[in-house]
Amino acid sequence: MVLRKHFDEVEAQKVDMQGAANTTIRWLVAKKDGAENYAMRMFEVQKDGHTPEHVHEWEHEIFVLEGSGLLATEEGDFTLEPGDFGFVPEMVLHQFRNTGDGIFKFLCVVPIKE
Amino acid sequence: MVLRKHFDEVEAQKVDMQGAANTTIRWLVAKKDGAENYAMRMFEVQKDGHTPEHVHEWEHEIFVLEGSGLLATEEGDFTLEPGDFGFVPEMVLHQFRNTGDGIFKFLCVVPIKE
Repeated sequence: MVLRKHFDEVEAQKVDMQGAANTTIRWLVAKKDGAENYAMRMFEVQKDGHTPEHVHEWEHEIFVLEGSGLLATEEGDFTLEPGDFGFVPEMVLHQFRNTGDGIFKFLCVVPIKE
Repeated sequence: MVLRKHFDEVEAQKVDMQGAANTTIRWLVAKKDGAENYAMRMFEVQKDGHTPEHVHEWEHEIFVLEGSGLLATEEGDFTLEPGDFGFVPEMVLHQFRNTGDGIFKFLCVVPIKE
């Protein structure tokens, strides 16, 4: 079934993984919506917040919507501003950090594994 | 390899499929970048423009960045404004139309088929 919503209709859930701070995730398009191959999430990182520094077996495709951030990786650090996009391959250590005074907001698409 | 670019570093190519008008596509993250499962594209539809009305065997996950549009489908029509997102399942007839005076810009993620 076709889905159309505004992101604020989807609950922002606290990311409570170890190493995360001041960060929420909204699962915009996921398996519950009929998606079988990949899911679209929105991360909102508040001032001084960050995602966990971690590594996993799946890739990220990201697009920055708002704010200023840093994508810190084992391959180097990359500043992130609105309109920037990125690809983090599987098994690359990475972390997203808010480096601004406002919210840092980005989309992050991940594969759906069975 | 980690990728980070701004969208304007990626060429906007004219969508010249039959039924398309005043529309360009930028392949932001694709197979060339190491992506194996899904690709992130940006569509920019100018005033009075639209994508083809068509149907295909793959799904879309979209996120609206700018402007006003309509997602016309065989299941009904859905207005699109910034912050809206959507899912169009495979084999559903659909078309994206710019309904505003400015540019209508959205991301569209598709699976990568071998």
